[in-house]
Amino acid sequence: MRIVQFRTEKDLFPSRIGVLQNDVIADCTNEGLPNTLIELLSQNNSLQTLARVAPKAAKVYPASSVRLMAPVTKPDKILCVGMNYKEHCNELNMPYPLEPIIFSKFASTIVGPGDNIIKPSCSEALDWEVELVVVIGKEGKQIKIEDAYDYILGYTVGQDLTARDWVTKEKNGGQFLLGKSMDTFCPLGPCVVTKDEISDPHGLRLKTWVNGTLKQNGSTSEMVHRIDKLISYLSSLMTLYPGDLIMTGTPSGVGFFRTPPEALRPGDLVESEIEKIGRLSNRVF
Amino acid sequence: MRIVQFRTEKDLFPSRIGVLQNDVIADCTNEGLPNTLIELLSQNNSLQTLARVAPKAAKVYPASSVRLMAPVTKPDKILCVGMNYKEHCNELNMPYPLEPIIFSKFASTIVGPGDNIIKPSCSEALDWEVELVVVIGKEGKQIKIEDAYDYILGYTVGQDLTARDWVTKEKNGGQFLLGKSMDTFCPLGPCVVTKDEISDPHGLRLKTWVNGTLKQNGSTSEMVHRIDKLISYLSSLMTLYPGDLIMTGTPSGVGFFRTPPEALRPGDLVESEIEKIGRLSNRVF
Repeated sequence: MRIVQFRTEKDLFPSRIGVLQNDVIADCTNEGLPNTLIELLSQNNSLQTLARVAPKAAKVYPASSVRLMAPVTKPDKILCVGMNYKEHCNELNMPYPLEPIIFSKFASTIVGPGDNIIKPSCSEALDWEVELVVVIGKEGKQIKIEDAYDYILGYTVGQDLTARDWVTKEKNGGQFLLGKSMDTFCPLGPCVVTKDEISDPHGLRLKTWVNGTLKQNGSTSEMVHRIDKLISYLSSLMTLYPGDLIMTGTPSGVGFFRTPPEALRPGDLVESEIEKIGRLSNRVF
Repeated sequence: MRIVQFRTEKDLFPSRIGVLQNDVIADCTNEGLPNTLIELLSQNNSLQTLARVAPKAAKVYPASSVRLMAPVTKPDKILCVGMNYKEHCNELNMPYPLEPIIFSKFASTIVGPGDNIIKPSCSEALDWEVELVVVIGKEGKQIKIEDAYDYILGYTVGQDLTARDWVTKEKNGGQFLLGKSMDTFCPLGPCVVTKDEISDPHGLRLKTWVNGTLKQNGSTSEMVHRIDKLISYLSSLMTLYPGDLIMTGTPSGVGFFRTPPEALRPGDLVESEIEKIGRLSNRVF
């Protein structure tokens, strides 16, 4: 199932839940379901409900006629994994981390497909990082590695936008938070693909294009710490909640470590794609 | 005005908004106001509404008869300021930061007055840090220093609990997030005191006792970066939203830098107090 959040033109609702199939969206909020995916996940058997309701939905829309939003909004946590692709560690000239390195973005950084990315005036090194995003489906703590996939709802595409000049050792005492949490720094979408549709989340190509030029082209097979390990590790430290997002790291090909370094500028088009999930397009403003 | 969130025994509501005066709480949710302070803040003239409704509330409770909750729950951001008291920098043997050092805690770390603090099994260096917490009252970006106080709703007491062995240079790539974001690491309360009742937020004593022994005894006058500067700085980087919390740093007297070092253990009672706001008591479990 491909789950979206969307609004229709002049919608009275702030968001609706939909199921996308063959470029048509079934409006499940119109069938009495909640407005947001996180609200839906707080109910019992939420996925079964969605699967039952969607095929009979009274209102359906061509996907091109609605405004797609990020498929998850206002999660408790956006957990980001640093240096989690081997070739990205190589371009940073850093050893592969023995344990995951975790930082975060604020929920308010999330924007959707087609939304603008705002280049902050305080940075001249705005950079791209396409990432496979794991969406947590149910609450868990102290999750064993072998049980980790039980806690996954599905996957989406994310851009972990980064003000590279704010994540240096000198800036903000070396804490990445500010350089990762400026407004619009987390485009997500276009949909959450439920885990049953992706047999191997470590066999997906992920790519970034800037103005049509391919910049990142990696595979989720390259992850240093794999998804089950990340869920087990994180849940050993804190409770995971439905809707929590784990951004699993970026492959090589970011702008800052190119020769010469590259940075996003107003007008640039950033396209982010992961096999079997979809493509996200955002213009820099 | 002293604003609280609370539940009555066997309450059907997840939380209620109340106004506390002379140990009596006026139930404002029962008067048709929202369940949470953040929802209330999204409405126009929310404080005027609260001030009008509270004195005429049909239901009032002795404060001791209800369960006080944290006065703010599920904010978009908990922004924490590191090394922001001169004597704390001295005990860390670190220079005063030229710019604020900002890290964060997840919203799900918030607990209320009387709630347990869980000592995580992964840390043997659980430490206390009493902090003045600024509660943002309205949305703002690029706020000028001279306008900063317009964006404040009020103040509360917070404990920025820290797994000191997880905020070292070696652990988590030097990122503080994990050592600051374990479950229950953010006791808040007992109330938000609106800014009109605190003429000088830089003239307040703040204290921590552990098992009745005074451990921290500082003054908010010692802050390296003052409240108006913090709001202006943060809002130059990201939009601030109603309910966002700024934990403004801790004075000296934390456990880890004592001789010999001290750490919280199950059974310990942590009491946190700020003049003109109140006292928060939490037992370590």
